[in-house]
Amino acid sequence: MTDERAASVLDVAHRARTAAADLAILARAQKDAALLAMADALVARTAQITAANDEDVARARENGTSEAIIDRLRLDEKRIAAMADGMRQVAELPDPVGEVVRGYTLPNGIEISQRRVPLGVVGIIYEARPNVTADAAALALKSGNAVLLRGSSSAASSNAAIVDVLRSATESGDVPADAVQLVPGEGHEPAKHLMRARGLVDILIPRGGAGLIRSVVEESTVPVIETGVGDCHVYVDAAADLDKALDIVVNAKTHRPSVCNAAETLLVHADVADAFVPRALSALRDAGVTVHGDDRVRAHDASVIPASDEDWQAEYLSLDIAAGIVDSLDEAVAHIRRWGSGHTEAIVTDSLSAATRFTSTTDSAAVMVNASTRFTDGEQFGFGAEIGISTQKLHARGPMGLPELTTTTYVVTGDGHIRA
Amino acid sequence: MTDERAASVLDVAHRARTAAADLAILARAQKDAALLAMADALVARTAQITAANDEDVARARENGTSEAIIDRLRLDEKRIAAMADGMRQVAELPDPVGEVVRGYTLPNGIEISQRRVPLGVVGIIYEARPNVTADAAALALKSGNAVLLRGSSSAASSNAAIVDVLRSATESGDVPADAVQLVPGEGHEPAKHLMRARGLVDILIPRGGAGLIRSVVEESTVPVIETGVGDCHVYVDAAADLDKALDIVVNAKTHRPSVCNAAETLLVHADVADAFVPRALSALRDAGVTVHGDDRVRAHDASVIPASDEDWQAEYLSLDIAAGIVDSLDEAVAHIRRWGSGHTEAIVTDSLSAATRFTSTTDSAAVMVNASTRFTDGEQFGFGAEIGISTQKLHARGPMGLPELTTTTYVVTGDGHIRA
Repeated sequence: MTDERAASVLDVAHRARTAAADLAILARAQKDAALLAMADALVARTAQITAANDEDVARARENGTSEAIIDRLRLDEKRIAAMADGMRQVAELPDPVGEVVRGYTLPNGIEISQRRVPLGVVGIIYEARPNVTADAAALALKSGNAVLLRGSSSAASSNAAIVDVLRSATESGDVPADAVQLVPGEGHEPAKHLMRARGLVDILIPRGGAGLIRSVVEESTVPVIETGVGDCHVYVDAAADLDKALDIVVNAKTHRPSVCNAAETLLVHADVADAFVPRALSALRDAGVTVHGDDRVRAHDASVIPASDEDWQAEYLSLDIAAGIVDSLDEAVAHIRRWGSGHTEAIVTDSLSAATRFTSTTDSAAVMVNASTRFTDGEQFGFGAEIGISTQKLHARGPMGLPELTTTTYVVTGDGHIRA
Repeated sequence: MTDERAASVLDVAHRARTAAADLAILARAQKDAALLAMADALVARTAQITAANDEDVARARENGTSEAIIDRLRLDEKRIAAMADGMRQVAELPDPVGEVVRGYTLPNGIEISQRRVPLGVVGIIYEARPNVTADAAALALKSGNAVLLRGSSSAASSNAAIVDVLRSATESGDVPADAVQLVPGEGHEPAKHLMRARGLVDILIPRGGAGLIRSVVEESTVPVIETGVGDCHVYVDAAADLDKALDIVVNAKTHRPSVCNAAETLLVHADVADAFVPRALSALRDAGVTVHGDDRVRAHDASVIPASDEDWQAEYLSLDIAAGIVDSLDEAVAHIRRWGSGHTEAIVTDSLSAATRFTSTTDSAAVMVNASTRFTDGEQFGFGAEIGISTQKLHARGPMGLPELTTTTYVVTGDGHIRA
């Protein structure tokens, strides 16, 4: 059974490799035509997709899944149209393949050109939302990669229908159908085989909760890009404009609490604590936020829940926030380095030296100065689309757009040059 | 015992992390001063280093090590001076830290700047040559990283002496001594603990034979950059200038057979086989090369050894070459994709369309047009120094210089911006 499963995973991986070789040399127009055909097909075959989605929703109900999760799972006409629009937007983005990253001529006359090329075969392991299926396929295809999709079993019917529609849309064009494939099989085994397909799969991107990401990092021999865990901090400096600080804290915490760039910890400089903490506690309470504070925060309001070590490192993803008072910017940075996840930190300050010190000493993918942590996002950064937010340092850090789905090759042109 | 070893590895890793935070904000001048002080110290304390090296050489002799390996291990005044010169050259290279990779302003006025920052803690696991100790330390320091060095036990005394000298040279400057540390302990355990120090160590670079690299890739949870295995090909196209082809094949094979960018396979287009193969066989034989040929090559010279599958995928690192005749450029590319290691491939041709097809369809770190495979090298590429040659696609591909030892951070500057 395990062997059969391994064989079928390796089979799709081999087919993806073959497709990747064809994809790598397609011109942008050929890829864009396929993306537009896929978008049209999603809309034209909405009924097929919603029927499949109904099966997933019914199964989720039977299993007692919460309505919040079921809402994330559900696809309707509007959401499918949004998926199609997303594919059309990717078609409009520039093609990263072929970009010359560096180019120069050596003293001996040899010309060196470092060019972007596709990674090859990209594996995505993801949870719940079936719209990721279309998003990931679009980004992989645009960047010239074949994609292997491993969604969660709860969305199996929806994902199968979406991939069926996308593949059928390739029939009349130049993109091979095997550019987009689901990894077949039930249970955890297929994902494990995918993680071991080093040499066939060039990169794995897990998208989902901390548990999923940890297990992929631990078990994969295929290179992994770690995404998403965000224990983001807002530090209100001694030189902060407190009105801006209040807006930023409330926005960073409450604008969309369930995502990785939401703030999870507030740190306030002692010099402005008396002026700021009561206002912040009041505004956060009004916004429905539960504050977990250190002793100095609780001295302002004894009803604040005491914060434990768990709170300092929590990615709540809910209307909770940890809050502490620090005596210096360096103490804030030390706190962030100790407890943070390296995703996004914000400083609110009007001091240029404080801003410079904060941005150069925090060790995170993104550092905000007088802006909400919620801006760490591929769309907000102007990438047009995002495959995830990397919290690792290798290859890509922060929001990943199309260029992050490429590697480079050096093309070295001589005229019979040999080494002396 | 295992726990103690793990604790001492984690201890150096923690100290490296602390040092890395200090290193990250040093100005170039501070780092360069340390590099020059280290270079001077290497020269001034040559006697200490050669005495330690004598111990390693004596131990190697006792263990019956070959003279070739002992030669690689040996340090004398000249080689130590060369190590010092290497450090001085690194001081002269531009500092990659602080480079703005991308910078732009969003429609809402937010300014985004993607800047190079150090990776943090870089681990290097390497074999034999003790000069790697100084090279790796110099490159890591210049790029603002703390380095953890794990050399082979055969060079333990030499490596300890070099690191002692380098650390003592930091006393009067701004670089913390813990910027350069050896991973302590004997046997394989310490390297294994290093591979598991995810979160403390940001990247591991194995430098050495295929066995070492494979074991690091398999066992490490710390992100790894795979370096060095080179099964490089030279393809002589139908439109090749055969004189240039001959020079390139002989140079690529014989200039330095023991290194990863030496050619291991020759592929010749059938249209020029009659004109080229006899000349190539003769020239290679004159250079002392043993040819392992397919049937069509052997039809030119029955004394050629038959090539097996092992030959097509061999990284000989010796005066051996596999040779075959192909009916088309695409057949050559298919051969390379099947058997190659993705390091460097060369085409010899005067046809622009052939060159374009070859460079766009081979999937390797470097592709040479009318140049020897031996040019894939950081120094040759003008990087000034090289930490290794990556044969993976993630983060860095091909020769890695100083920028490849950095990651980036996004600095996002607003004026109280929140998301609507």
